[in-house]
Amino acid sequence: MTDQATRPREESAAARWARFKPIRTGDDYVASLRGRDVEVWLFGERVEEPVDHPIIRPSINALKMTYDLAVDDPDLATAHSELIDAPVNRFLHIVGSPQDLVMKNRMQRRMGQLTGTCFQRCAGLDTISVLHSITFDIDAKHGTGYHQRYLDFMAEAQRNNIILGAGMTDPKGDRSKRPHEQADPDMFMHVTRRTDAGVYVTGAKAHMTGGLNSHWICVMPTMNMGEADRDFAIVGLVPGDAAGITYIYGRQSCDTRAMEKGDIDQGNARFGGQEVLVVFDNVFIPHEHVLMDGEYEFAQDMVARFTAYHRASYVCKTGLGDVMVGAAAQVADYNGAEAASHIKDKLVEMTHLNETIYSSAIASSHEAKQLPSGIFMNDAMLANVCKHNVTRFPYEISRLAQDLAGGIMVTMPSDADFKNEQIGPILEKYMKGKHNVPVEFRQRILRLIENMTLGRNAVGYLTESLHGAGSPQAQRIQILRGMEVERKKGLARDLAGITEE
Amino acid sequence: MTDQATRPREESAAARWARFKPIRTGDDYVASLRGRDVEVWLFGERVEEPVDHPIIRPSINALKMTYDLAVDDPDLATAHSELIDAPVNRFLHIVGSPQDLVMKNRMQRRMGQLTGTCFQRCAGLDTISVLHSITFDIDAKHGTGYHQRYLDFMAEAQRNNIILGAGMTDPKGDRSKRPHEQADPDMFMHVTRRTDAGVYVTGAKAHMTGGLNSHWICVMPTMNMGEADRDFAIVGLVPGDAAGITYIYGRQSCDTRAMEKGDIDQGNARFGGQEVLVVFDNVFIPHEHVLMDGEYEFAQDMVARFTAYHRASYVCKTGLGDVMVGAAAQVADYNGAEAASHIKDKLVEMTHLNETIYSSAIASSHEAKQLPSGIFMNDAMLANVCKHNVTRFPYEISRLAQDLAGGIMVTMPSDADFKNEQIGPILEKYMKGKHNVPVEFRQRILRLIENMTLGRNAVGYLTESLHGAGSPQAQRIQILRGMEVERKKGLARDLAGITEE
Amino acid sequence: MTDQATRPREESAAARWARFKPIRTGDDYVASLRGRDVEVWLFGERVEEPVDHPIIRPSINALKMTYDLAVDDPDLATAHSELIDAPVNRFLHIVGSPQDLVMKNRMQRRMGQLTGTCFQRCAGLDTISVLHSITFDIDAKHGTGYHQRYLDFMAEAQRNNIILGAGMTDPKGDRSKRPHEQADPDMFMHVTRRTDAGVYVTGAKAHMTGGLNSHWICVMPTMNMGEADRDFAIVGLVPGDAAGITYIYGRQSCDTRAMEKGDIDQGNARFGGQEVLVVFDNVFIPHEHVLMDGEYEFAQDMVARFTAYHRASYVCKTGLGDVMVGAAAQVADYNGAEAASHIKDKLVEMTHLNETIYSSAIASSHEAKQLPSGIFMNDAMLANVCKHNVTRFPYEISRLAQDLAGGIMVTMPSDADFKNEQIGPILEKYMKGKHNVPVEFRQRILRLIENMTLGRNAVGYLTESLHGAGSPQAQRIQILRGMEVERKKGLARDLAGITEE
Amino acid sequence: MTDQATRPREESAAARWARFKPIRTGDDYVASLRGRDVEVWLFGERVEEPVDHPIIRPSINALKMTYDLAVDDPDLATAHSELIDAPVNRFLHIVGSPQDLVMKNRMQRRMGQLTGTCFQRCAGLDTISVLHSITFDIDAKHGTGYHQRYLDFMAEAQRNNIILGAGMTDPKGDRSKRPHEQADPDMFMHVTRRTDAGVYVTGAKAHMTGGLNSHWICVMPTMNMGEADRDFAIVGLVPGDAAGITYIYGRQSCDTRAMEKGDIDQGNARFGGQEVLVVFDNVFIPHEHVLMDGEYEFAQDMVARFTAYHRASYVCKTGLGDVMVGAAAQVADYNGAEAASHIKDKLVEMTHLNETIYSSAIASSHEAKQLPSGIFMNDAMLANVCKHNVTRFPYEISRLAQDLAGGIMVTMPSDADFKNEQIGPILEKYMKGKHNVPVEFRQRILRLIENMTLGRNAVGYLTESLHGAGSPQAQRIQILRGMEVERKKGLARDLAGITEE
Repeated sequence: MTDQATRPREESAAARWARFKPIRTGDDYVASLRGRDVEVWLFGERVEEPVDHPIIRPSINALKMTYDLAVDDPDLATAHSELIDAPVNRFLHIVGSPQDLVMKNRMQRRMGQLTGTCFQRCAGLDTISVLHSITFDIDAKHGTGYHQRYLDFMAEAQRNNIILGAGMTDPKGDRSKRPHEQADPDMFMHVTRRTDAGVYVTGAKAHMTGGLNSHWICVMPTMNMGEADRDFAIVGLVPGDAAGITYIYGRQSCDTRAMEKGDIDQGNARFGGQEVLVVFDNVFIPHEHVLMDGEYEFAQDMVARFTAYHRASYVCKTGLGDVMVGAAAQVADYNGAEAASHIKDKLVEMTHLNETIYSSAIASSHEAKQLPSGIFMNDAMLANVCKHNVTRFPYEISRLAQDLAGGIMVTMPSDADFKNEQIGPILEKYMKGKHNVPVEFRQRILRLIENMTLGRNAVGYLTESLHGAGSPQAQRIQILRGMEVERKKGLARDLAGITEE
Repeated sequence: MTDQATRPREESAAARWARFKPIRTGDDYVASLRGRDVEVWLFGERVEEPVDHPIIRPSINALKMTYDLAVDDPDLATAHSELIDAPVNRFLHIVGSPQDLVMKNRMQRRMGQLTGTCFQRCAGLDTISVLHSITFDIDAKHGTGYHQRYLDFMAEAQRNNIILGAGMTDPKGDRSKRPHEQADPDMFMHVTRRTDAGVYVTGAKAHMTGGLNSHWICVMPTMNMGEADRDFAIVGLVPGDAAGITYIYGRQSCDTRAMEKGDIDQGNARFGGQEVLVVFDNVFIPHEHVLMDGEYEFAQDMVARFTAYHRASYVCKTGLGDVMVGAAAQVADYNGAEAASHIKDKLVEMTHLNETIYSSAIASSHEAKQLPSGIFMNDAMLANVCKHNVTRFPYEISRLAQDLAGGIMVTMPSDADFKNEQIGPILEKYMKGKHNVPVEFRQRILRLIENMTLGRNAVGYLTESLHGAGSPQAQRIQILRGMEVERKKGLARDLAGITEE
Repeated sequence: MTDQATRPREESAAARWARFKPIRTGDDYVASLRGRDVEVWLFGERVEEPVDHPIIRPSINALKMTYDLAVDDPDLATAHSELIDAPVNRFLHIVGSPQDLVMKNRMQRRMGQLTGTCFQRCAGLDTISVLHSITFDIDAKHGTGYHQRYLDFMAEAQRNNIILGAGMTDPKGDRSKRPHEQADPDMFMHVTRRTDAGVYVTGAKAHMTGGLNSHWICVMPTMNMGEADRDFAIVGLVPGDAAGITYIYGRQSCDTRAMEKGDIDQGNARFGGQEVLVVFDNVFIPHEHVLMDGEYEFAQDMVARFTAYHRASYVCKTGLGDVMVGAAAQVADYNGAEAASHIKDKLVEMTHLNETIYSSAIASSHEAKQLPSGIFMNDAMLANVCKHNVTRFPYEISRLAQDLAGGIMVTMPSDADFKNEQIGPILEKYMKGKHNVPVEFRQRILRLIENMTLGRNAVGYLTESLHGAGSPQAQRIQILRGMEVERKKGLARDLAGITEE
Repeated sequence: MTDQATRPREESAAARWARFKPIRTGDDYVASLRGRDVEVWLFGERVEEPVDHPIIRPSINALKMTYDLAVDDPDLATAHSELIDAPVNRFLHIVGSPQDLVMKNRMQRRMGQLTGTCFQRCAGLDTISVLHSITFDIDAKHGTGYHQRYLDFMAEAQRNNIILGAGMTDPKGDRSKRPHEQADPDMFMHVTRRTDAGVYVTGAKAHMTGGLNSHWICVMPTMNMGEADRDFAIVGLVPGDAAGITYIYGRQSCDTRAMEKGDIDQGNARFGGQEVLVVFDNVFIPHEHVLMDGEYEFAQDMVARFTAYHRASYVCKTGLGDVMVGAAAQVADYNGAEAASHIKDKLVEMTHLNETIYSSAIASSHEAKQLPSGIFMNDAMLANVCKHNVTRFPYEISRLAQDLAGGIMVTMPSDADFKNEQIGPILEKYMKGKHNVPVEFRQRILRLIENMTLGRNAVGYLTESLHGAGSPQAQRIQILRGMEVERKKGLARDLAGITEE
C-alpha cells in the first residue's frame, strides 16, 4: 500500500476539518472530490483522478444530485437544523419528528426518480440518526462524553455540508467464529494501538456504498459483540483521505460500456451506483472522533436501530420503480402496443407492487417513536416488512418491464452499428417501430430498461434490493422476533373458547 | 310485505328520533335492538325476535363489542366530538385529522382481533365521513342546506350513540343499462313520490353489511349518474324500523351450526358477520333527513370518496390475520410441531403479509388530505393498494393456517360424537395430540381455523375481502387512473436522454 | 363398542369372500353396501343404514360413478387384467406399463369432472400397486409367500369388482416417540394376538378417505419402523364389516345442508367426499390376508412407493379445476360480464395453473420405471412436484373463481326464501342478473362455487389438496432427497472453470 | 452492402451443396465455419473471421457441443434416420414417435446443463418438424411437390450433418397493418423477382438465434396471411453464405468482458448465446429449395405448429436451471451457509419450479399426436403451459440464486485487481470465505451466477425465456383458444343441477 507522503498519520481532528470548506451546489461537491490524496484501484490499476474516470463519474453524479435537489427544491431536500440554527441538506438533518422521516422518504423516492440508481447517501444519513441515540445511551450508562463529540462533529458536518459514508460490513472470515476467535483478527475492524491522541484501527469494510464519494466515513460494528470482543467495539469518524485507507472498486454488470463511445448503449449514461471495498491499515482516529470504544454491549442495539432506519430507506427503490413503470409504458408506446388491455394491466400491477413498498416505508416513518435522546426512530416491524417486500417486488416489476420491452431489448445491435455509414441506414429501416418515433428514441428507452434490469443499475435495483440492509432471512428473523406470537395465540384461544386455569 | 300497523308511513324526523335513548354499553345496545318492529326473513320464515335468533345473535355480539370497547379502552375507541363537545364512540366521530384516521385503523384492527369477524360498523362510519364533504360541496354549488341537516343528524346520532348502516349497492339489473334505462326502475333506488314533508323511495340495497343490526340506514347512490338519472340521485337517512322496509337474511357457509347443541363446532361461537338484502317499498324520508336529491353530478365523487375511506378500512382484516397467526401457532403447539423451522417460517410469512396490509392502510390514513369542508380524506392510491392486497393476502394466510392445522381440521368428527358416552372416550383416546393438552383445546382451535377459512367467518375473512368496497378490478381501474403514467414516462425519457422538441 | 352378534370374530378368508357377489353397475354397488353389519356414528348417533343417510349418500354416489363410468366409457375406465384374463375396472387394474398410469390419470381427471369432489377410490388403487412390488420384494429377501397371497386376493377382488380402501394414517400420539415407545401402544396399529388362523390387530386409522364406502380395507404402516416396532409392521386385508370395526364419520363444512329441503343450497347435491376415523378393536385377519408381518425394514419403502403413486393421483383435482373454470365462466356469463378482458384473463390463469398440475402428473406417469415385480411405478420427483403444485394452485384457482362469482355468493339468502310465497317474488325481482337467465340458474352456479371453495367439496378441493398424500413439507423433503445437488454443483463448477484435484 | 465478388447470385442448388462436406465432430463444425464468405458487423466494424472473434466464439462453442455430445453420448444425441438409413444427429432427426420428442427434450436439458446458455439449434430443429407436415399438407391440397423437395433437402442435410437456422421474425413495421399494406414492403420478407431457376427475396429476419452459426437458413412467414399477402407467403432454404445476406450482431449485457484478459469475470467463458439481425437483399432461392410460394392459407398453421414444437423446446431452460441450483448450492457451501434450513428450503423451491417446467415439456411430448404426414407433434396446450411457466419461474429461480450468492456478487472487484501484485494479496485476505476454499473458486462461482442472472447468459436464461417462441400474451391467447370453456361450463351446469331445454 502506498503511503500518502504529505500527510502525518496521527492527524488532529482540527487538521482534518481544515481541509473542508462549505459545499453548496452540486458543482461545489464535484470540486470538493477533485485532487484528494486517495489511493483507488480499478481493473488492477491506480486511478489518478476518480472524478474524471468514466466508470466512476456517474456514481459521483448521483451524489451530486443530492446537492442540486437541495438547491432546486429546498422544501423537499433541506430542513432547519436546530443544532446550527440554519437550513441544512436533509441528508445531514437530525430527525426531530416522524414527519422528518416521512420527508426523508419522499426525498429518497424523488432522488430515485431523478437518478434511476442508488444515490449512495442513505446509509450515512441513517448512521447519523443511530449515533444520536446510541452515544446518548452509552453516556447515560457509562458517563462517557460521546454524545457531545457527536453533536460537535455534526455541527461541523452540517456547516460544511459534507457527505458521511457508513462503513459497516466486515469481511467476517469464518462465519462460525466470533470476532476475537478469528485466526486473522483483521476479519473484523479493531483497535490496534492506543495513543494519547486517539486510536488506530485495522480491518476492511466490504461493499461500502458510495465509499469513495464520501468525505467522511463512520466505521462501526457489523453485529452484536461480547466482552471478549471489546477491541472490535469501535465507532469512529475518519476522513476518506486519511492515511492508511485504500479503495478497491467493485465491478458491475456492463460497467465498461461507460468507456465506449456515445451514451446510448449505457442506457442511463449520467447516473450509476458505487460499491467499494475500503481497506484500513492502521488508520488513526483522534479521540474527538471516537464515539464508542469498548462498550460492546451497545453493538447489537446499534445494528438493530440502524436496520430500523435503513430498511425503510429502501423506499428509494420506489423512485426507480416509477422510472420502470414509465419506461415500460413508454416502450409500449413506441412499439405501438399501448392500447392493449394486457399492457395496461401489467402497468397497473407494477404500480400496485411499487406503491405497496412505498406504503410500508412511510407507514414505518409515520409510526416512528421517540427515543430517550430525543430523536425519532422508525417502527421496526414495518421497516422490516418494507425491506422484505423490496427483496421481491422489484424483481417482478423488472420482469414485467422486460415483458413490455420485447425481445429486441437483448438482441439490438450496438449503437456503433447504428452510427455506421454503411449499415446504419439498414438498421434505421428495419428497427423502425411506430411511425413518427425516431429509432434512436426506441434504442434509448430499450437500453434504459436493459440498464435497470440487467446492466449497471440492475445492481442497485435488484441485487442490492435483495441484500442491502440485510438479506431476506435477516428480515424474517426480525419479523419473528417482533411478531408477538404469544399475544396472538391468546387472541385465538379467546375466540375459540379455550380457557386455561 | 306485511305492513307495520302501528306506525304511520309518513313519520316526522322528530318522531323517528323519539324512539331512541342514549346507548352507552354493549348491553344497552342489545336492549335497543329488542322489540323493534322490523320484518325479517330467514330460511323462508319470519323471525320473531332477531336478537334471540342463534344465527343472528353472533352478528349482534360483534357490533356490541364496538360499545364495550369504547367503555374498556376509551383512548382507542372514543374521541372528543367538537360537534357536541363530548366524548363519542369513534365509530361516530367526524374525522378531524390524519391521526383520527390512523386511530380509526388501530381500532379496526383491535376489533378484528377481538371478534375474528366482520363487526359491520365501518361502512356506516365511512359514510359519515363522506357525507360531511359531499353535503358541503353540494351546498357550495347549489346553495342547498344539506350540510347543516347532516350536522344536525350527526349531533343526534352522537348523543344517542346509534349505529348507522350504509345502504349502497343496488341490484343493478341489466349491467349494460343506466339506471333510468332499466326495464324495472326499482333496480336502482329512486324517488317515487314527493310530498311537502319529504320523499318516498323504492328499491333494494344488496348485501348490506350489518343492515339489520343498524339503527339507521343511509341510502345513497352506488355509482356515477347522468342528468336523466336525477330521481336515482338520492341520499337519505332512515331508521331501520321505518315502515316499508323488509330484511332478507343472507346465508353463510356453516350458518346452521349455530343451531346445533354446544359451542365447539361453531369455531367462533360468539361472533359472526351479517349481510342482508334490504328491500324498500315506498319508504318515507322527511326533508330533514334528505342529503341529496337530484344533484346527480356528485354521485361519482361520493362513490370515489367512499372508496378512499372504505378501502383503507379493510385494515380490520389484519386483526383477523392476527387471530389466524395466533391460531396457526397455537395449533402447531398443540400438535407438538412448533419447533420445526418450516413452521416458524410460515408464521413469519403470514405475519409479513398481514403487516404489509396494515402498512398500506395506515400509510393511506397518515397521508390523508383535508377537503374544503374541513374533514380529512385518505390518500386514494394507497387505500386502493391496501384493499388490493386484501384481495390476495388473506387467501394465502388462510392456506398457510390450514397447512399448520393439518388434515384433521376437515376430518374431525362432530362434537356430538366427542360428547357421546360410548364413542366419546374412543375419540378422546385417538385424537390426543401433545401430552397435557386437553383434546377439547385441539378441537376448539381446529374449529376456529375451519370457521375462518371455510366456515362462517371465511365469508368475512376471504370472500368479503375480495369483493367488499369493490372487487379487485375496481381497484385496478382506480390505480390506473391515479398512476400518473405520463409523468413517469417523462422520468424515463429524461434518464434515457430522450429530448423531444 | 357394540359387537356384531351374528358373526364370529375369527372368520376365515373364504367366509369373508362368501359375502360378495360380482358388482357390475353403479346400482349393484349401492346395493352391495345396503344391509351391511357395520357400526357407524355420526353426530353422536348410530346410523342405521348409511346408504340412506342424506349426508353420507353423496359420498356413495361419487364412488358409484366409478362403476357407471366403466360401463359408459370402458376404454377409459376398464382395462384387461392378465390375472383373470378379463376386463376389469381400472381402479382394480395392476399397472402393466407407463401407459396404464397415464390412462389412470385421465380417468381420475374425468372422474373429477363428473363428480366435482373426491371420489375416494385412488388411495386403494395406489395401495394395490404398492403391494404388488412390496410383497414381491419381501418374498425375495425372506422367502415368504406374500406375493401369491396378494395375487390370490387381487383375483377375487377383480372378479367381484370390489372397492379396496387404504387404511394408512395412524393417530401417532406423541410425535416425538417411535411406535413401540408410545405410552398407549394403540397409537399405531399393531398385532395384539396371534393364532393358528391369523392375527388380531388393534388401533385406528384416521381420516380414511371413503372408509365406510369400501368393501375391504388394507391396513398398513404409516411410516418407517425399526426392529423394536416389529409388531407394528403389519399389512392386512380386512372386509369393512369385520367384527371389531367402528366408523366415526368426519364432519365437513356445510355438511348439514344435505339435511335441508331442496337441492339448491348444497351446490353439488349429488356428490361429496368422505373421511372417517376407523377404529379397530382386536380385528382378526386370517393368514391368507396378511401381506407383511414383522418385516419392519420394508415399511419405509412401502410409504415411499405409495407416495410416488399417490401424489400423482392428485391429478384428479384438475378435473375439479375444470369444473371451477367452467363454473367461473358460467357465472360471469350469467352476470353479463363474460366479455370483459380481465374476466377472460382470469379464466386463462385458472386454466394455466390447472394444466400445469395436469402436466406434472402425466409426466410422472409417462416417465414411470419398472420394478423387479414387473409393475411400473411413477417417477417420484415429478409426482412430488405434481402434489406440491396441488398444495398451492387450487387455492389460487378458487380465489379467482370467487372473484368472478361476485360477493353475492356469500350474501344470497337461502333457497327457502326464494321458495317462500311472500318474499320469493321479491327475491326473483331483485336477484335477476342477465336477461333470459332464470334466477335459479344463477343461484345454482353460485352455490356450486360456494360448495367447492367454502363448503363440503372445498374439503376435497382445498384442504385435502394440501394434506392428502402428505403435507407440503413432506414433498419438500422428498424433493430435497431427490434433487441430486452434488451432481448439479458439479455442473456449475465445470462451467465456472473450477477444477479441484 | 458489399457483394460477395466470387459467387454468382443465381446459384444452383447443387452448387450450394457442393460447398459442404460431412461434419462429424465439434472440431469439424468449427472448421466448417472458418473462411466462409459472409458479411458480419459488430460494434460498427466488419468482422474478418467470426470464428476467432472473442465475443462470437462462445456462441460457436455452444453449437459445437451439439456435435460433441452426439459423439460422447450417441444414445441421447443421435437417432436412426429412416430417410438415409443411418444414425444422425438428433438435431436433424425427423420425429417418428412421441418418444423421439421426449428424447429431444432430454437432450435439450442436457445441452443446457453442459453449456449454461442458449445453444441455438432448437428453432432449426423445430422448423424441420414443421416443414415435414406443412409441405405434405400443401401438396395434398394443391398438388405441388414440396414434400419431396423437403425430403431431398433433409437427406443432404443429414448426410452433411449441417446446422439449419430458423429465420422467422420479420421486423413488422407498423403493427396495425398487414404485410401488403406496409409503406415499405421489406418490413416482411417477400419475393421480389421470379426467374426460371428460382425466386429472389428481400427483407430481414430479426433476433435470429444462432443465425451466423448456421450453415443454412430457412426463411418462413412469421404470422398468418391473407390472399393479398401471397408474395410474402414464402418458405425457402438458403445457405448462410448466399450472396446478398448481411449479419448484424446483437449486443448482450456484459458482452465485452469476453475481450478482457482472463476468463474469470466472464463467469461462463466458454459458452454464450447469439442473436443476429439477418438482412436479405435480393437473395436467390432455387426452385428445389422453395417449400412454399404463395400458399398463404398455410402460414397460420405453420406458425401454430412451430409454436407447438418450440414452446416445449424451452425445456432447455431446465438444464440452465440445474446449473443455477448447483451454483446456488455451491456458493452457499463456499460461504459456509449450506446447513441453514432456509438455504435448503430455497434450493428445494428452485428445484420444484425447475421440475415443474420440465414436467410440462415432457408431458407435451409424451402426449404428441401423429399428423397426416406421419410426423408427431407436441400437445399444443401443454407446450403453451410449459412456455408460460418459462416466462415466470426462471426469474424466481434467478432471484433465489442471487439470494444465496450474497451481495458480494455485485460488489466484488475485477479479476485484474485480484491478479495485481500490490492489492491482489489484500483481496485474497479479505475475500476469503470458508476455510480451505480458494478465493478464486468463490470468485468463479459468483461470476457464474452474475453471468446467468445479469450478464450474457441472463439474456438466454431470462429475457429470451420471456420472449422466445412468443411473449407471455401469445401463450395466453393460445390457452384461451384451447381451453374448451363451453365444455367446462357444461360440466359445471351438470353438477349444479342446471338443465336447459
